[in-house]
Amino acid sequence: MKRSPLSPADYHVRDLSLAEWGRKELTIAEHEMPGLMATRKKYGPLKPLAGVRITGSLHMTVQTAVLVETLAELGADLRWASCNIFSTQDHAAAAVVVGPPQAGGSPDEPRGVPVFAFKGETLEEYWEMTLKALSFPGEGDTGEGSASPASGPQLIVDDGGDATLLLHKGVQMEAGDAWVEGPAESYEEGVIKALLKRVHQEDSGFFRRLVSQWCGVSEETTTGVHRLYRMAQEGTLLVPAINVNDSVTKSKFDNLYGCRESLIDGIKRGTDVMIAGKVAVVCGYGDVGKGCAQSLRNQGARVIVTEIDPICALQASMEGYEVKRLETVLSRGDIFVTTTGNRDIITLEHLQGMKDQAIVANIGHFDNEIQVERLNASSGVVRENIKPQVDKYTWEDGQDDAGNTIKAHSIYLLSEGRLVNLGNATGHPSFVMSNSFTNQVLAQLDLWNHREDYKPGVRVLDKLLDEEVARLHLDKLGVELTRLTPEQAEYIGVSPTGPFKPEAYRY
Amino acid sequence: MKRSPLSPADYHVRDLSLAEWGRKELTIAEHEMPGLMATRKKYGPLKPLAGVRITGSLHMTVQTAVLVETLAELGADLRWASCNIFSTQDHAAAAVVVGPPQAGGSPDEPRGVPVFAFKGETLEEYWEMTLKALSFPGEGDTGEGSASPASGPQLIVDDGGDATLLLHKGVQMEAGDAWVEGPAESYEEGVIKALLKRVHQEDSGFFRRLVSQWCGVSEETTTGVHRLYRMAQEGTLLVPAINVNDSVTKSKFDNLYGCRESLIDGIKRGTDVMIAGKVAVVCGYGDVGKGCAQSLRNQGARVIVTEIDPICALQASMEGYEVKRLETVLSRGDIFVTTTGNRDIITLEHLQGMKDQAIVANIGHFDNEIQVERLNASSGVVRENIKPQVDKYTWEDGQDDAGNTIKAHSIYLLSEGRLVNLGNATGHPSFVMSNSFTNQVLAQLDLWNHREDYKPGVRVLDKLLDEEVARLHLDKLGVELTRLTPEQAEYIGVSPTGPFKPEAYRY
Amino acid sequence: MKRSPLSPADYHVRDLSLAEWGRKELTIAEHEMPGLMATRKKYGPLKPLAGVRITGSLHMTVQTAVLVETLAELGADLRWASCNIFSTQDHAAAAVVVGPPQAGGSPDEPRGVPVFAFKGETLEEYWEMTLKALSFPGEGDTGEGSASPASGPQLIVDDGGDATLLLHKGVQMEAGDAWVEGPAESYEEGVIKALLKRVHQEDSGFFRRLVSQWCGVSEETTTGVHRLYRMAQEGTLLVPAINVNDSVTKSKFDNLYGCRESLIDGIKRGTDVMIAGKVAVVCGYGDVGKGCAQSLRNQGARVIVTEIDPICALQASMEGYEVKRLETVLSRGDIFVTTTGNRDIITLEHLQGMKDQAIVANIGHFDNEIQVERLNASSGVVRENIKPQVDKYTWEDGQDDAGNTIKAHSIYLLSEGRLVNLGNATGHPSFVMSNSFTNQVLAQLDLWNHREDYKPGVRVLDKLLDEEVARLHLDKLGVELTRLTPEQAEYIGVSPTGPFKPEAYRY
Amino acid sequence: MKRSPLSPADYHVRDLSLAEWGRKELTIAEHEMPGLMATRKKYGPLKPLAGVRITGSLHMTVQTAVLVETLAELGADLRWASCNIFSTQDHAAAAVVVGPPQAGGSPDEPRGVPVFAFKGETLEEYWEMTLKALSFPGEGDTGEGSASPASGPQLIVDDGGDATLLLHKGVQMEAGDAWVEGPAESYEEGVIKALLKRVHQEDSGFFRRLVSQWCGVSEETTTGVHRLYRMAQEGTLLVPAINVNDSVTKSKFDNLYGCRESLIDGIKRGTDVMIAGKVAVVCGYGDVGKGCAQSLRNQGARVIVTEIDPICALQASMEGYEVKRLETVLSRGDIFVTTTGNRDIITLEHLQGMKDQAIVANIGHFDNEIQVERLNASSGVVRENIKPQVDKYTWEDGQDDAGNTIKAHSIYLLSEGRLVNLGNATGHPSFVMSNSFTNQVLAQLDLWNHREDYKPGVRVLDKLLDEEVARLHLDKLGVELTRLTPEQAEYIGVSPTGPFKPEAYRY
Repeated sequence: MKRSPLSPADYHVRDLSLAEWGRKELTIAEHEMPGLMATRKKYGPLKPLAGVRITGSLHMTVQTAVLVETLAELGADLRWASCNIFSTQDHAAAAVVVGPPQAGGSPDEPRGVPVFAFKGETLEEYWEMTLKALSFPGEGDTGEGSASPASGPQLIVDDGGDATLLLHKGVQMEAGDAWVEGPAESYEEGVIKALLKRVHQEDSGFFRRLVSQWCGVSEETTTGVHRLYRMAQEGTLLVPAINVNDSVTKSKFDNLYGCRESLIDGIKRGTDVMIAGKVAVVCGYGDVGKGCAQSLRNQGARVIVTEIDPICALQASMEGYEVKRLETVLSRGDIFVTTTGNRDIITLEHLQGMKDQAIVANIGHFDNEIQVERLNASSGVVRENIKPQVDKYTWEDGQDDAGNTIKAHSIYLLSEGRLVNLGNATGHPSFVMSNSFTNQVLAQLDLWNHREDYKPGVRVLDKLLDEEVARLHLDKLGVELTRLTPEQAEYIGVSPTGPFKPEAYRY
Repeated sequence: MKRSPLSPADYHVRDLSLAEWGRKELTIAEHEMPGLMATRKKYGPLKPLAGVRITGSLHMTVQTAVLVETLAELGADLRWASCNIFSTQDHAAAAVVVGPPQAGGSPDEPRGVPVFAFKGETLEEYWEMTLKALSFPGEGDTGEGSASPASGPQLIVDDGGDATLLLHKGVQMEAGDAWVEGPAESYEEGVIKALLKRVHQEDSGFFRRLVSQWCGVSEETTTGVHRLYRMAQEGTLLVPAINVNDSVTKSKFDNLYGCRESLIDGIKRGTDVMIAGKVAVVCGYGDVGKGCAQSLRNQGARVIVTEIDPICALQASMEGYEVKRLETVLSRGDIFVTTTGNRDIITLEHLQGMKDQAIVANIGHFDNEIQVERLNASSGVVRENIKPQVDKYTWEDGQDDAGNTIKAHSIYLLSEGRLVNLGNATGHPSFVMSNSFTNQVLAQLDLWNHREDYKPGVRVLDKLLDEEVARLHLDKLGVELTRLTPEQAEYIGVSPTGPFKPEAYRY
Repeated sequence: MKRSPLSPADYHVRDLSLAEWGRKELTIAEHEMPGLMATRKKYGPLKPLAGVRITGSLHMTVQTAVLVETLAELGADLRWASCNIFSTQDHAAAAVVVGPPQAGGSPDEPRGVPVFAFKGETLEEYWEMTLKALSFPGEGDTGEGSASPASGPQLIVDDGGDATLLLHKGVQMEAGDAWVEGPAESYEEGVIKALLKRVHQEDSGFFRRLVSQWCGVSEETTTGVHRLYRMAQEGTLLVPAINVNDSVTKSKFDNLYGCRESLIDGIKRGTDVMIAGKVAVVCGYGDVGKGCAQSLRNQGARVIVTEIDPICALQASMEGYEVKRLETVLSRGDIFVTTTGNRDIITLEHLQGMKDQAIVANIGHFDNEIQVERLNASSGVVRENIKPQVDKYTWEDGQDDAGNTIKAHSIYLLSEGRLVNLGNATGHPSFVMSNSFTNQVLAQLDLWNHREDYKPGVRVLDKLLDEEVARLHLDKLGVELTRLTPEQAEYIGVSPTGPFKPEAYRY
Repeated sequence: MKRSPLSPADYHVRDLSLAEWGRKELTIAEHEMPGLMATRKKYGPLKPLAGVRITGSLHMTVQTAVLVETLAELGADLRWASCNIFSTQDHAAAAVVVGPPQAGGSPDEPRGVPVFAFKGETLEEYWEMTLKALSFPGEGDTGEGSASPASGPQLIVDDGGDATLLLHKGVQMEAGDAWVEGPAESYEEGVIKALLKRVHQEDSGFFRRLVSQWCGVSEETTTGVHRLYRMAQEGTLLVPAINVNDSVTKSKFDNLYGCRESLIDGIKRGTDVMIAGKVAVVCGYGDVGKGCAQSLRNQGARVIVTEIDPICALQASMEGYEVKRLETVLSRGDIFVTTTGNRDIITLEHLQGMKDQAIVANIGHFDNEIQVERLNASSGVVRENIKPQVDKYTWEDGQDDAGNTIKAHSIYLLSEGRLVNLGNATGHPSFVMSNSFTNQVLAQLDLWNHREDYKPGVRVLDKLLDEEVARLHLDKLGVELTRLTPEQAEYIGVSPTGPFKPEAYRY
């Protein structure tokens, strides 16, 4: 495929000269992502996504770069933003913009995929770039006469749902919804509202046009999926959505095995602290929490779990973890990690009551798992930046506004409360992301193939596809799979080629 | 509750004098079964099962004894058999027959629950006693004039589905089905057919009468549940069934955490072998396989997994297990364990090709996971009994009928291929069984309460009940559960009191 | 070797008919004890211990049986007692007495080695039988004219030092030492003194005669070795001693890897309790404690360690264990295990303060790690035997003599405070014992070969022998050992054939 | 202590402006190094090392900075170099040069300790700077009339023995030894010889003068200690040496627990590779190998161990690792790590035979564990630098000079074969280094206090000091230490205050 040079308006990355290093890392990552490479091999020649406009809103890492180029190989017309202000790897972003080397192409001319992402964006920049990734150049399907307005995506690859959110909020605004005029519940919400209002002033039909050919979205996080189900229940979801998160090869792999490696990695790169001998408090014992707890224990920490769900609490207990409420263990914990996808897990009061030198990090989803905004706004605490993504907050002896006694102490907050594995390290390793991203590619194909018949709503991928994703990763590990005899298949009532388990099976 | 003396026809146990020891063990087990004890406390005074005839077909262990007496406390009229020829603990069986001490009762007079079970039954005895447990004395609802024919159960507590199978096969026979006349596929099938035919000769309406008031069955194994779904699909299922196996607090607890403790226990009591340094081959990586693999590794074995399902295979690989086909590792394995619920996992040919002194055990479900019948029928192998439930099979150098070369070697087969944890040890520990059995009790109550409206078919318990089962076990472990704030509950869209997860959540 | 029938005076075991089962188990164990079998193969034909009188005082298990028969194969004239009242496996004892099958021998005539041991001896029987094992029939080297007095051993294989103690105390008594007349510090000490006095009355030169040809002892426990060093320091040690305990292939193998398997085994056979979710308190973090803590955690317990040594305490902490004083955790622990080799680790007051239903066991050395004598003598507690080696002790609400409040509760004591792995299970598995026992055999050979030149004192085996013991066990595990090149050996300054480490190396 | 400004000749670091960041990190590290801080508190006021000239040759990391400033606090006059070309953390080096903030001092004027180190030195620079660190300004004790020649150190803190080596080789050269004239066995040896010759030409009595007041060296690595013992045996060792490596709180802590955390950290920062599912080959199963194997397994790798010592091989096997020769597993390994302290563990031929994309790293001691020089000199392989400390080597299909077939493949070499944890990450975490470095400080004090009576030779620190080092780290971890009663101490024959174990105890 011959690619054309990008115009400077079509990307916003830190430094294109990082592309050379990025291309090397991509080559390495490709060896670790057999699912994506097999997908390229199988579908690349067929170009099933030829010309399909796809927007991605997903951490712009080396692994994502392999995903982006896989979708490009399948023919897609892509624009990409990150879904987190700290998670971009600048060399990966640059590498995608420059693109794979091509015969006859000038080596330093960007001929790859438009990317809008750099490490350490402001929130204003973040949402602006999300919008740019959603706005394809050229003739939008409008009769309104504006010169060459933007087209929107036909498909979205989403992580956390920010791209989906922006489109929905924009369309609702244009339909007269008053949300955008209401007070902002957080600083970030204010940024979104300001952006929407600005666009509205410029072009009051912008978002309706942007979604006019939108056929679907695939979403890979618990949080984003939760938003989708809620919109579906409320009847506000505009398009069919595929819940990639609940593919077994996603939720039981990248959440669990990914975090098992990347949490420790983020903590180490951020703090170099010894884990052995420490008391680590893991808030939440879902798949993410299970991975985190296991890796902290395996490095010699004593792990205490907090949980709301009695079943998960009993699981934690059966694995030998102490299960307590956070209030009970503030003075014992050396390391605190939130893994929940919920909000206000660690409050300002919790932070104020912690042991001196405690390390605090979030690997759940949004930064509101920890009350960072309240922390930063609190008058009694001094913030000192140690190095990028590592801040020290210090309290003197005193009282907070509610009259609680505060003992002099400091804590370290990693990645400003955003995902520690992406902010302080490089996210999940390639191999596990190959599973997640192969699901994303299969979901995009499925959405496109069924663009005529799928209705707005949330569905999961077929179990046979889930098994296929796993199967594509076995050779690399030297796995020999056993095959059922016809008698055995008959005995347990399945086909010898799968799917092998009932839908409700929990793995 | 005042209990009457049992007639000698109402029980068949090894030795009533073991009851004293059994009663002591029951008292100990009650402390470890907080779910059942809480259920007694809550429902005991209400007697919601007053007079309801319940047949249990479930390993007659100390833990089961606590279940039986819990159902008795709720008012039920019970009869019990084991569901495995080796799994009965004779002192537990005796203790149940004698019953709890009662004021004014003679201490050595059996006033408990009828039990038909002893360790080491023949298959003929086993099925005979299953039938007895299904046959309640007194007036069956018949107009056929026979003197005091048996009544059948109103509810069944099943494990593996043997009681349910017998009733269905009996009714089908009486409806003219020819299965009973066909050739037996195994020795055990022959035993069942012979029994059915004998009953039929004596009383051709026996089974119809027995099922005439049957309202439901709760089943707790993968295998038994699989049979139920199949019957439901085929339209032959006679009653509503509750799949207790797929309660999270069952499948993810007793299968996983139970086996993690009881597999090693069975192997040790059977063989005293050192696990460290050995190569252990675990066939199947479902919940049972996961628990088995973990415990073998934790004792210092290198574990190799065999799998048919690519997802489970990838899970095994991510946990650091080698995944191979059984044929590939016959000469490397020191210990082989089947955990699948499928048949013919270890064939006669596999056994013939194993390393000298290999230990072979099954913890899946039926003994047909290992081809024990073919082994025993094979002419080239000599069987020597070492002690109860431990047999040595020895081959000399030679060839089998298919011309395969056999090298001189011996293997040790535990529990004749039946469940090694129950045959060689005492099954799962009380605490984890308290989870499974509390599900059973809740399922019995649910079936009885909905006897009017449930239709034949298979259902699972409500997630709220599942969470309740877990909750009842937390105090004993000192767990502090965190409570969602209303804002948090709203944010993730659940009630602060649960259920906390969507149906498809995998834990 | 043709063996003669034993006279009934030459053994005291439970039941000779158990020998058939025992012989089968011996055959199995031989496959798991490659070190001993290699030693038989190498030295058997040479009979280097031909006619040497050896007394063993060592748990009479199946593994010990293989040791005994290995020494017999090397030519020794043996007599054996157990070193613990509960540790004998009656079928193993019987098997040793009957001996290996021999051509032309009557199968049921005892032609093996004299053994004095059965499971559940009283302390009186225990010391009586230790004496019998020390007393060889025939002409002792005496001029005192008594008819056919006993000869003593030329070598002793000791475990815990009871045989050595008895001989030393006897000789000291005969030399006029007044210890035997003083008050007994424990019940057992009283038993020993009574025995010594009785012998003294009958024959005032008995012990001097018994030790007259004694050339040495090899001892394999921390406790026994400690006694030996103390005697050597005090100048009272009569013979050269080899400290087998401090061979790496002993202390770092059977203490660590043996206990890792046998502790859980003992607890399970004794109580069937679920380990997962429990809080286990391990007193002591030496090699035994390390193995115990690891296995309890691996089964899902939270482990708390108590320690006196700051280095071991720091090790425990680095492995993620909480380290506390016992007093602090009495109300949290569900399982308490002593592993120290010291006394009064768990006092009566500790027992009184424990959580209801706590399980208490010792795997250290003597039963005085737990204050069992004080417990049994305490007026406020009721003892109930549940089954052999499992006793329940119950306190009502009240106060002890010192005025401490006691809350109503029960505890379970395993094996009356004696070694739980031998009392409730079958001790360490064969493979690890093959390491320990190969050291014992090599030590016996070394003592015999150097009987002329070794002086009284304590020595360890040469590191090259230690490495040899390890080497003999590698093939069975499929280990490939790498060989140093001459350049590499030169570079690190060792011989390519070992020893590979300096003396102080800690492994 | 008022400190004077340093002259620019007294340091060579990358960038003094990094000092601000470095000072922040030092403050954090001090909280994690309780042993050093307690030493400062106890000895700081006494200044026991007042004016003592100490040269350090030890990785110039943040942790080392805390050590350096601890020695400064005790009064020492220090000069410091790194002992590895990649291990310097530039911000730590700058921070030490700038020194702690002082009242009245200008904040940006260097008033700290002279340091000669930066990350990525050439070998020439490295040895030059080692020499500078050994050369104190001012009047050396010479009568030769040169203007203000250098003084040498009175004490050396060594890691690997390079400073000690340089002094010994220099003195030997001045005494007429011909080594310096011989051919160099490696590139690095050539660099050393060139340096020595250059110095010799300038000043033929330089080294004799430098060692004239040298009183001792403390050394903390297996490799360096081995060199010292060899020199002691050969009678060439010039001074008393303390073997800090064999303090339990060193070898069993930083080797084991340090590597357990820092190996993974180095691999992750270098490659971001997923560990789970990979096959990792660990060459050597000493303390370093034990830590490495454990952490790789804990992250989900299957670990294969290579060993020369049958005891360590058996240990590996008991822990469930496969033990093979390297040749056997070249095509199975994804990650290869050398941990031995020996040379030529991974040869060029091994590298040529590895699986495609294998990762190769050394955490043993010198880079000659892997044949990097041969690799770089090999004509058939292409080297590509991916990023600092990560190189890719690629072979095409072909043959090597010996005619061995080579299959096309690439491998990744980390840190050019030097210590991966220091080259690719930041070395061991502070807490464990606090143990090692507290030993170093105690050793320096001991050497100084005994400068009159210690003879040349190698000694270890007293066990009581070893226990004290551990004790100083317990509070930070919340450890409660149990205290022996007098009766217990008497029973096991130790003092209630320690030492608690015999010398040979292995922990």
